[in-house]
Amino acid sequence: MAKDKKVEQITDMEVDFAQWFTDVCTKAELVDYSGVKGLFILRPYGYAIWENIMNELDARFKKTGHQNVSMPLLIPESLLQKEKDHVEGFAPECAWVTHGGSEELGERLCIRPTSETLFCDHWHNVVHSWRDLPMLYNQWCSVLRWEKTTRPFLRGREFLWQEGHTLHATAEEAIAETEQQLETYADLCENVLAMPVVRGCKTDKEKFAGAERTYTIECMMHDHKALQSGTSHYFGDGFARAFDISFSDKENKLAYPHQTSWGLSTRIIGGIIMTHGDNSGLVLPPRIAPIQVVVLPIAQHKEGVIEKAQELVDRLKAEGLRVKGDFSEQSAGWKFAEYEMKGIPLRVEIGPKDIEAGHCVAVRRDNGEKITVPLAELEATVPKLLDAVQAGMYEKAKKNLSEHTYTATTVEEVKAIAEGEGGFIKTMWCGGLDCELAMKEKAGVTSRCLPLEQEKLGDVCPCCGKKADKMVVWGVAY
Amino acid sequence: MAKDKKVEQITDMEVDFAQWFTDVCTKAELVDYSGVKGLFILRPYGYAIWENIMNELDARFKKTGHQNVSMPLLIPESLLQKEKDHVEGFAPECAWVTHGGSEELGERLCIRPTSETLFCDHWHNVVHSWRDLPMLYNQWCSVLRWEKTTRPFLRGREFLWQEGHTLHATAEEAIAETEQQLETYADLCENVLAMPVVRGCKTDKEKFAGAERTYTIECMMHDHKALQSGTSHYFGDGFARAFDISFSDKENKLAYPHQTSWGLSTRIIGGIIMTHGDNSGLVLPPRIAPIQVVVLPIAQHKEGVIEKAQELVDRLKAEGLRVKGDFSEQSAGWKFAEYEMKGIPLRVEIGPKDIEAGHCVAVRRDNGEKITVPLAELEATVPKLLDAVQAGMYEKAKKNLSEHTYTATTVEEVKAIAEGEGGFIKTMWCGGLDCELAMKEKAGVTSRCLPLEQEKLGDVCPCCGKKADKMVVWGVAY
Repeated sequence: MAKDKKVEQITDMEVDFAQWFTDVCTKAELVDYSGVKGLFILRPYGYAIWENIMNELDARFKKTGHQNVSMPLLIPESLLQKEKDHVEGFAPECAWVTHGGSEELGERLCIRPTSETLFCDHWHNVVHSWRDLPMLYNQWCSVLRWEKTTRPFLRGREFLWQEGHTLHATAEEAIAETEQQLETYADLCENVLAMPVVRGCKTDKEKFAGAERTYTIECMMHDHKALQSGTSHYFGDGFARAFDISFSDKENKLAYPHQTSWGLSTRIIGGIIMTHGDNSGLVLPPRIAPIQVVVLPIAQHKEGVIEKAQELVDRLKAEGLRVKGDFSEQSAGWKFAEYEMKGIPLRVEIGPKDIEAGHCVAVRRDNGEKITVPLAELEATVPKLLDAVQAGMYEKAKKNLSEHTYTATTVEEVKAIAEGEGGFIKTMWCGGLDCELAMKEKAGVTSRCLPLEQEKLGDVCPCCGKKADKMVVWGVAY
Repeated sequence: MAKDKKVEQITDMEVDFAQWFTDVCTKAELVDYSGVKGLFILRPYGYAIWENIMNELDARFKKTGHQNVSMPLLIPESLLQKEKDHVEGFAPECAWVTHGGSEELGERLCIRPTSETLFCDHWHNVVHSWRDLPMLYNQWCSVLRWEKTTRPFLRGREFLWQEGHTLHATAEEAIAETEQQLETYADLCENVLAMPVVRGCKTDKEKFAGAERTYTIECMMHDHKALQSGTSHYFGDGFARAFDISFSDKENKLAYPHQTSWGLSTRIIGGIIMTHGDNSGLVLPPRIAPIQVVVLPIAQHKEGVIEKAQELVDRLKAEGLRVKGDFSEQSAGWKFAEYEMKGIPLRVEIGPKDIEAGHCVAVRRDNGEKITVPLAELEATVPKLLDAVQAGMYEKAKKNLSEHTYTATTVEEVKAIAEGEGGFIKTMWCGGLDCELAMKEKAGVTSRCLPLEQEKLGDVCPCCGKKADKMVVWGVAY
């Protein structure tokens, strides 16, 4: 890969993965820091990735009958307190508004950390009959959680996300919705972001504040740590009872509806970076890349080179691809490094010799492979190359996941793996909170999930030695 | 128009226009009230209108080279204070965050009322060279302004908007940008929302806090009051100097860039309601309507009716139209009233007799006209009818504007018009603040703008009698 001042500025990922990550975030111009700790600026290139993710998800949400809404930014303290478990989970990290203009408010208002309470308050007003159900709502917004330590994408005091909230006549319908939305997230990760996932349920300890059940998809990063990438919660009728939401069913009897919520945030961009990136910078899957192909003229001062390069840009754009040509006076070396840093999936080079030979040279960002493409076959070849990059990136990530997924039967084994290369460690589990805490204390890992695809690795819990019929995946998480 | 319980619930617009407006907002299910005064819930139907407006504008912004970004929600008090005029304009209506979790903050943070200061702070970090210019940024978000009196869409303490912020090497470029973006807003209003506009500049008194020049588009509502519908500001280099944003130009000399900002908010939905609505509810222009055509079966219990109606839905959808069929067991009368209330531009009715005759009946929402459409000509006719509705709505609004635009030469004349039917009143003006204030005090009107298309109505100011070479439009504004 091309060497250049710009590239030399980023830390080697094998030396300091955390610093490498921060370097990529800033050098690829995804984010900038603001004057408030933990509130990040999404620059155009970072936001363009989020826009593509929004478009992918929003189309899926609408196809399954969901409608977008906009709920208020602020929640009165008394409203947040209506559901006991929920307020306990979120109140400690709320940002509080106490003054409007020059006046002190009668009741302080928190900036939404999540909006269950707002949706419930609205539904209390508008849901009356079985005809009003299901309510299939979503909103795109930012939320605030006053975290102690913060990092771009992975942990912000403010982050962008979507939060889906739905209300159903029956528990079965609500559970089916919860599972459907988890599958939507898994589909996005696997088929668009080239990130293989483990689907599962959270343990009681790790589930969302107020939920009966939390489903999750867990992805493995390059350093073998886990990233919780999307969650979907089933609430039963707990919130409905707390907020007095009821409806008359078809037999005209009063009933409480069943509720779900599900969210995916800009955190997933951190996941893309840490799954696919390398020491030259970002590597973006073609299906989400704001620019899929960059066309670079070689020896552009020579007659006809820029014109030919522009022609390639136009031809590829006409195929519906997202293409950029860079004809600025920067050196070819600078441009190579710049677009490697930005993770553009495919670079197409064309110079005087190529024009003479009637071809151009395509270079894959994911593995550096160079492919000579006859100009007459440009439209037929480039989309195939992008598909190959997409597939190659998924396979590479899948290989990382398989090679660093282990089974263990003792706490010591878990500890040894966690302290070695790290990864996802499967064990049986009795289901007890004490054993979950013991695993954290003795082996330094937390439960990631109870995978939906369960395996029988034995029948005793590695912590207490008692009977165990659940399989858990453990790991170190972001 | 069909009468029904639902319709009877809304106030007559000629009796109480303000109450009629609120009734439409809630009965058409555009908004709901939240637990915090002035923070409104945009329900699915209201948000769908905003989504369509976003799509229209975003495509235009991107076509002219603008990129979306995401800036933080919170502004440190010290940052807000950097530009003197700006902080004076906004500080009195800021909502202040004083606590994060259980800790009191060292410096209080305001929830953004607008984001000039945040963009400037970022640009201070990233702008160095003429190569970095222009910066053509936009963001979609919500902002907070702690207003005393609030109304859905028209005046919220929180509202959704887009705010564009750009930075240019020269004043000429920045002014051209300011004017281009005003024209984008005018295009949206006139060609999509069927709302004719008056383009102009604000007086110094009415311009944006910190701006050198504020351009505006002013629309006339059904009650002849004015709605400021979109503004575009030229800042000169004032903010750049206050925030120390400089760049080395092509001659390697340090220079201050010139800045603009421009915004359009959900207030425009209030404008759509008050321009086009009637005593049966909302009337939506086809180009922005979430549902353009509703297909209703008549005597749907008769054999084959629902199937035929569904066929019409499918055929119209295949033409790329936004279509809904309502086959629920509600009465036809209920459905007529419901979709009139929601302002669906075209209702298509089909019953057993229509099927026998080989036609359906289309009913225009804007004027109640009924058109018999042979089924074989459905695809050819319906888009033309929608175009006719769009054009008819624009003409009607244009007629309202022309018929209630007056010229006056004395303060007494202005007062008489303002206290009579109201409208836009053109007079000459000397340019003095005293005369502007006197007009407000004596005639009860404020300056809406100095129209870009100036006329010479005379050469003396109606207030002071001195020489006047500017024409102002006065009115009562929302």
